[in-house]
Amino acid sequence: MNTFGNNITVTIFGESHGTAIGAVLDGLPAGETIDWDAVRLEMARRAPGKNPLSTARSEKDAFTIDSGYFQEHTTGTPLCMRIVNGDHHSKDYDQLRHIMRPGHADYSGKIRYGGYNDYRGGGHFSGRLTAPLVFAGAVASQILARHGIYIGSHILQIGNVKDRMFSPLGEETTALQQLKTQTLPVLDTNQAAAMEREILTAKQQQDSIGGSIECIIQGMPAGVGEPFFDSIESQLSHMMFSIPAVKGVEFGDGFALAAMRASQANDAFYYEQGQVKTKTNHNGGINGGITNGMPILFRLAIKPTPSISQPQETIDTDTQKNCMLEITGRHDPCIVQRAVPVVEAAAAWTILDMYLGAKRM
Amino acid sequence: MNTFGNNITVTIFGESHGTAIGAVLDGLPAGETIDWDAVRLEMARRAPGKNPLSTARSEKDAFTIDSGYFQEHTTGTPLCMRIVNGDHHSKDYDQLRHIMRPGHADYSGKIRYGGYNDYRGGGHFSGRLTAPLVFAGAVASQILARHGIYIGSHILQIGNVKDRMFSPLGEETTALQQLKTQTLPVLDTNQAAAMEREILTAKQQQDSIGGSIECIIQGMPAGVGEPFFDSIESQLSHMMFSIPAVKGVEFGDGFALAAMRASQANDAFYYEQGQVKTKTNHNGGINGGITNGMPILFRLAIKPTPSISQPQETIDTDTQKNCMLEITGRHDPCIVQRAVPVVEAAAAWTILDMYLGAKRM
Amino acid sequence: MNTFGNNITVTIFGESHGTAIGAVLDGLPAGETIDWDAVRLEMARRAPGKNPLSTARSEKDAFTIDSGYFQEHTTGTPLCMRIVNGDHHSKDYDQLRHIMRPGHADYSGKIRYGGYNDYRGGGHFSGRLTAPLVFAGAVASQILARHGIYIGSHILQIGNVKDRMFSPLGEETTALQQLKTQTLPVLDTNQAAAMEREILTAKQQQDSIGGSIECIIQGMPAGVGEPFFDSIESQLSHMMFSIPAVKGVEFGDGFALAAMRASQANDAFYYEQGQVKTKTNHNGGINGGITNGMPILFRLAIKPTPSISQPQETIDTDTQKNCMLEITGRHDPCIVQRAVPVVEAAAAWTILDMYLGAKRM
Amino acid sequence: MNTFGNNITVTIFGESHGTAIGAVLDGLPAGETIDWDAVRLEMARRAPGKNPLSTARSEKDAFTIDSGYFQEHTTGTPLCMRIVNGDHHSKDYDQLRHIMRPGHADYSGKIRYGGYNDYRGGGHFSGRLTAPLVFAGAVASQILARHGIYIGSHILQIGNVKDRMFSPLGEETTALQQLKTQTLPVLDTNQAAAMEREILTAKQQQDSIGGSIECIIQGMPAGVGEPFFDSIESQLSHMMFSIPAVKGVEFGDGFALAAMRASQANDAFYYEQGQVKTKTNHNGGINGGITNGMPILFRLAIKPTPSISQPQETIDTDTQKNCMLEITGRHDPCIVQRAVPVVEAAAAWTILDMYLGAKRM
Repeated sequence: MNTFGNNITVTIFGESHGTAIGAVLDGLPAGETIDWDAVRLEMARRAPGKNPLSTARSEKDAFTIDSGYFQEHTTGTPLCMRIVNGDHHSKDYDQLRHIMRPGHADYSGKIRYGGYNDYRGGGHFSGRLTAPLVFAGAVASQILARHGIYIGSHILQIGNVKDRMFSPLGEETTALQQLKTQTLPVLDTNQAAAMEREILTAKQQQDSIGGSIECIIQGMPAGVGEPFFDSIESQLSHMMFSIPAVKGVEFGDGFALAAMRASQANDAFYYEQGQVKTKTNHNGGINGGITNGMPILFRLAIKPTPSISQPQETIDTDTQKNCMLEITGRHDPCIVQRAVPVVEAAAAWTILDMYLGAKRM
Repeated sequence: MNTFGNNITVTIFGESHGTAIGAVLDGLPAGETIDWDAVRLEMARRAPGKNPLSTARSEKDAFTIDSGYFQEHTTGTPLCMRIVNGDHHSKDYDQLRHIMRPGHADYSGKIRYGGYNDYRGGGHFSGRLTAPLVFAGAVASQILARHGIYIGSHILQIGNVKDRMFSPLGEETTALQQLKTQTLPVLDTNQAAAMEREILTAKQQQDSIGGSIECIIQGMPAGVGEPFFDSIESQLSHMMFSIPAVKGVEFGDGFALAAMRASQANDAFYYEQGQVKTKTNHNGGINGGITNGMPILFRLAIKPTPSISQPQETIDTDTQKNCMLEITGRHDPCIVQRAVPVVEAAAAWTILDMYLGAKRM
Repeated sequence: MNTFGNNITVTIFGESHGTAIGAVLDGLPAGETIDWDAVRLEMARRAPGKNPLSTARSEKDAFTIDSGYFQEHTTGTPLCMRIVNGDHHSKDYDQLRHIMRPGHADYSGKIRYGGYNDYRGGGHFSGRLTAPLVFAGAVASQILARHGIYIGSHILQIGNVKDRMFSPLGEETTALQQLKTQTLPVLDTNQAAAMEREILTAKQQQDSIGGSIECIIQGMPAGVGEPFFDSIESQLSHMMFSIPAVKGVEFGDGFALAAMRASQANDAFYYEQGQVKTKTNHNGGINGGITNGMPILFRLAIKPTPSISQPQETIDTDTQKNCMLEITGRHDPCIVQRAVPVVEAAAAWTILDMYLGAKRM
Repeated sequence: MNTFGNNITVTIFGESHGTAIGAVLDGLPAGETIDWDAVRLEMARRAPGKNPLSTARSEKDAFTIDSGYFQEHTTGTPLCMRIVNGDHHSKDYDQLRHIMRPGHADYSGKIRYGGYNDYRGGGHFSGRLTAPLVFAGAVASQILARHGIYIGSHILQIGNVKDRMFSPLGEETTALQQLKTQTLPVLDTNQAAAMEREILTAKQQQDSIGGSIECIIQGMPAGVGEPFFDSIESQLSHMMFSIPAVKGVEFGDGFALAAMRASQANDAFYYEQGQVKTKTNHNGGINGGITNGMPILFRLAIKPTPSISQPQETIDTDTQKNCMLEITGRHDPCIVQRAVPVVEAAAAWTILDMYLGAKRM
């Protein structure tokens, strides 16, 4: 349920306003040195409170390691990471118990857990739980890099502003690194300002705005994955749809393939200095669920964060009557930029899992 | 690897030109009577050879039951279904061993299995392996119907022709049933002829054409699913991307959410005669990975089937040189209409699995 | 439920008097040539009807391969094996529906499956379902042998007659092979005749007799297994207790350790020509759940087969009254000798699974 | 790997001398109130340092709850428990890095993890990791009690001293409760003193002593479990062999069945006031892997704890030479009495998992 992976597993725990959140990483290869500063950098990319584009709420996300790391190496036994939740200001959390926020898991979660779920700040459904995911992915991506596998992402769209797409045949690794340093990571840097305006306008109007993200995985050898239920697409989408607010995932040309002919969509193979490549990459580096050695490419739709200050119609489960809801406090006018490192981390964990699985063959 | 499900599992086996293909269904509730004629009807919807829109190759897909069904009821122990592969005409299968068809799993599969995979007709990667999936789903959908849960699908797009979308608040169950009787299941029947032209034009030009499918699941109670890794979206997309040719999955408004505001995308809750509903359904019936009682809605992108008669550039792994490929024989100019019952079946299996899982809570 | 394994999985299906029984083997390494005659030999060791020591019922257990084997090699995709059940003479099966045989799963299975289980000949609970297990293990043991890993077993006890135990430091591989040729495989061949008398006496008295089996796995490298839940002992015992009639499993000195001191039970390590060995093997080749390179040793208790001709007290679930039961027909007076190849097969599958799992590290 | 369970999962983490150890419990029913004092009592039963029978080392095992418990109820989302490891005196841990203790996982673990495992105090292999298991089981047993299911255990044997066995038809629940209060829990209290002498004699001789434990599970309804791979015996033994030092598990009459006839071993069914019972319970409450409603009975062999002060022969992996080892410090002369609450806890978790699984049927 809260555990993901076949060869390496990540188990997440915690609630937004509980004592602590964290993750247990199991099955990691022994003997890997982790650069914890690099992990902290990834977690800082996700953390809010750095600029007007995200909620003013400050989350330090300082983590400690309880186990699994000894004398500067992974031990191969479970690595437990933990983030103590900061002090939360007194707040009328009780409203969330019975006034169901539209677009949130308040109602569906209440039914699922018979009303016993921790409703404060969304509880276990909170986007805050993506911090442990970023941690897990940051560890995985360091191991992947030692095998020549690199992952990068950029914001493809926010509202009506679009970035250009990755070159399907691959980008320079340095370009992927460069993206990680941008507040709004885009390829066409001219678009960053327009996206920022899109976000600030929504904010000003007590609203929030959605977007999309594109991710590329480079350096994957051919032959990783399985036909059918353990296809690369199945595993990656399973993980991606675990990220709150993700409502769409497409690989290669994705939904554009609906209007295409095979003569356009088929990627011709060719030899280049003894290595097999494809001339185009409409299939996103995956044929029959298995990597073909070309970059893996996918895009995700991110819905606008549902917490907005505008009055909204909803229900009160105590009175069992319809009512109006006004959410006060600080909200994210856009979470797309904060979702970027989450997507990369989620991809890293999944890909390392499948990469290690291919070694047993 | 070839097994899917947590509470009920389906294991598929077989190759396109091997002795037999089939499936083992495990964990089914005991005591369910199955209408085998209804199962055969679903399998006939998937089978090719009925009209010029699919390959002329005839697959009878007559199945036999080896176990798990006794005195007109499921026993609760594994139900094994088996389809004997028909006689295959002598054919130069050897070409597929070393000439890699673009868009197919020939190359990635060859690397994955060290060249030992059965390459005849695509082997285990063949779309023929969706027949056992349709079987499993047809069984599951009969059980779901006894719990008031119904699944329907239509072709949303073929090439440049589009059907209208399902009403997100739900369709009449009879309308969903009606769709199952159409050669090209669409809501706006005017579009069927235009879609047919799209397919036949592609066929005439020795090409194939892609499309998209929309699926609706009605009658699901609220509270089914899990946050994060076992979200409804995670499980459904995992299964959907197992279907060959699926390259995109979106829930609710999906990618359109990238350009939306929360004030548009949030679905307001309200009580209607004591029952909780939402006024809109931009979230596709799922909040926080858990059903909210509204219809589950998703769409899939289907790529054009890669087998076309036009000459294509590719590689010969024997000579390790580039070469031209001409695929002769009969091909599907479009598989979207054949994928419709596969999508419904895959959804039925996944939803029954999650529905039964919710009972243990 | 009916699937076992982490890296390779075996799924079994079928009922004693259904159409067919079989198994799907998934995740096998591609490119392995299987000696089918050797597999048939293992299955013949399990089959009854060869001598007065087992039931006169003849089971040919002729299997066919539906998939997963192509041009004399495993393909790496699911290998489905199937055995068609022979004609069953007309027989009053109905008695088994409501008269619960003591020691059998008739009653517990009836409750588990709400009365819908196939009760003919024990249905899915039948010992006949060990035939697919023997098949799976016979395939696995051929692959293990290519890695220098060999498995052998002997009858340790039948009734009051005991064989000597394996040398805990290992046996000659040829001695293990030799055991497979014996009707009652024992190390001290003098005991075979005494065991046979034990069985025939029980048979004469319309009774059956229990026993125990010892198994040795040689050639396992050190470092395979996991602490805690995936220990070698956990995995092997999980599989062993899946075999009907097994009621006890012990590793190394097992229950004798209860009366021992550590000064006796600890196995001293030493180097011999650069290789690590232990001077004794009270721990059965496993420390902390992980192999130490010495032979893995375990023993199993097999209960007397519960089908006997003597009148027995039991219940009639139709009348809900107590009653007497007389089981007519042909029964096994002892199944220990038939369980020997099943134990070896079950061990082979489990060990190959764990061995392959260690490769991903 | 470090996660166990199908419907509820427990994931354990930590090393003996790391920062903290703990467990994540996932899938617990929501709305359960836990008596934390009762949990602490169970953990105190396991903790050493209370008397001369165990090591003088004091482990407080004070735990904190990080998540999953809100307003005095389980939330249904992951419950994370954590125990901070106390200060460890400076000690030459380095010896454990290269001098392999016989009977411990030092060598097998070193190979498994390529020498990167935390060797201090046995690291992740330490018996200390059973504290999280006791926690998980203590939570589970409170939930089971609400369904009328009770678990009790006693020491059956230490060295040459034996207790009488449980009545196979069941014990008074109060008697099971009473056992939990004894330092050496036995049925025949006369044996406690003799067992104590066995332990103290071994201690005096710088040695340790093994033993065995018997466990009974009462109140289980019939029909829980599965044939073959998910049999009650398979699941329980899997869990039991996860407990360090367990080397044998037997159900019902276990190994004694090897010398028995079916006429002795079959348990006759009968109706008593409309309820089905058996007159004897040689099968330990399980037929065909499924409960029959009678008490589940099993016994475990516990090897003598391998840490003893006597000089022992072993190897030095640094010099790759044979050497002598003298372990100084405080050791457990017997861990059987400390294993009793671990066995009960492990049983409680497994049984709750299977009990909840039966609800989905």
